[in-house]
Amino acid sequence: MHNYKIIVEYDGTNFVGWQQQENGQSIQATLQEAALKLSGEKVTIFGAGRTDAGVHAYGQVASFTINKKIETDVIRDGLNQHLRPHPISVQKAELVDSEFHARFSAKQRIYKYFIINRLAASTLENERAWHIRNKLDVKLLKEGAKKLVGTHDFSTFRASNCSAKSPIRTINDIIVSKSKNRIKLKFKSKSFLKNQVRSMVGCLKYLGEKKWDLKKFEKVFIKKDRKKVAPPAPACGLYLEKIIY
Amino acid sequence: MHNYKIIVEYDGTNFVGWQQQENGQSIQATLQEAALKLSGEKVTIFGAGRTDAGVHAYGQVASFTINKKIETDVIRDGLNQHLRPHPISVQKAELVDSEFHARFSAKQRIYKYFIINRLAASTLENERAWHIRNKLDVKLLKEGAKKLVGTHDFSTFRASNCSAKSPIRTINDIIVSKSKNRIKLKFKSKSFLKNQVRSMVGCLKYLGEKKWDLKKFEKVFIKKDRKKVAPPAPACGLYLEKIIY
Repeated sequence: MHNYKIIVEYDGTNFVGWQQQENGQSIQATLQEAALKLSGEKVTIFGAGRTDAGVHAYGQVASFTINKKIETDVIRDGLNQHLRPHPISVQKAELVDSEFHARFSAKQRIYKYFIINRLAASTLENERAWHIRNKLDVKLLKEGAKKLVGTHDFSTFRASNCSAKSPIRTINDIIVSKSKNRIKLKFKSKSFLKNQVRSMVGCLKYLGEKKWDLKKFEKVFIKKDRKKVAPPAPACGLYLEKIIY
Repeated sequence: MHNYKIIVEYDGTNFVGWQQQENGQSIQATLQEAALKLSGEKVTIFGAGRTDAGVHAYGQVASFTINKKIETDVIRDGLNQHLRPHPISVQKAELVDSEFHARFSAKQRIYKYFIINRLAASTLENERAWHIRNKLDVKLLKEGAKKLVGTHDFSTFRASNCSAKSPIRTINDIIVSKSKNRIKLKFKSKSFLKNQVRSMVGCLKYLGEKKWDLKKFEKVFIKKDRKKVAPPAPACGLYLEKIIY
């Protein structure tokens, strides 16, 4: 058996998400079909991040094993050939040792959330960013982000169908940056709960537009009452940036 | 009469270009329809750059006069309301003196060309960049760019249907930059000939991938023989960035 690691970029707009599902085309199934065509083997491809419908990736990592040994350049180019015309593209393929598992070996996951903060609608970043009309106070976003960094019970920001055993997670870093009317939030953690980033961004937005003050933001975070939470940020602004092993 | 200046962003993918035409939807006509709905007046909107089909803009500038005096915020928001769902968005509206003309008052035009240089197809930048598989030598791109800066006869890079009286233009600056596999070329000039930027980028690509050497590049530039020129770069990588007055 040969174990391959691939780095994958995709436009998630028209997919049901990473995970194979009954109700539509997933990234995982599309990659698996391409791998079957390339290798003649039925493979399961494991992704490091199970991105939701509409979420994009520049640096998703996936791994799979096949019996045949295939050159890594052939893996990359062959998968890309069979992936056309889907907006999924394999950037790199590597042969890795049998212990490596894209999901379980991951040490850090980095997600980026992209906001366009201005009155006029976005055009070139349609389906690529969250367009927010109310002016966001970046200083408040940074203060709110600080409260989230560290080891906490993140039940507040967890989807009702999240399957993780524990709601405790450690966020190592959140970097908020602004350039003109573009705001980027970068989240770094070993792992996230289902919907966690989008739910946190939704609450940070309430804080940034002064619908909530910092006290209210903290209270919501601590209370763990999903009914008190802000609506989650839309999927189109979220990007899986990088996985660190 | 009141003279208005607007800054316009658009995704040019599905338009026939800036200029009103018989064969499809133009940016200009779409804006004029929105202006008619807003003001009740039939107006002609002049753009600073007559971008081709598929070319995008972050900072197109346009001007038009109407009889009615309308608050600039109402111009911006009203146009945007009537522009929906077209991917055209007015960023700013200003009342300017009657002498101002978006096209004729422009002092400098800045265009950006965006290249993704890697083997794997682009996904998130589909219709937003030129995907080039052959590795480009950025040093050569910079050397080629240097040859183009200054006052020259640019007949080589001029579309056959270009209506400009003179092929002489002055390029004030070309900045070539690279970050990972993304290459950006920024062109600054008072004005460009029809197709000039895309034609120059097409020839710079031949140079960067070493299909031509610098001597051949210069020879083509000087010879002014349109049959010897490289195919122009695709429209999807070109952006009208900014107009300086």
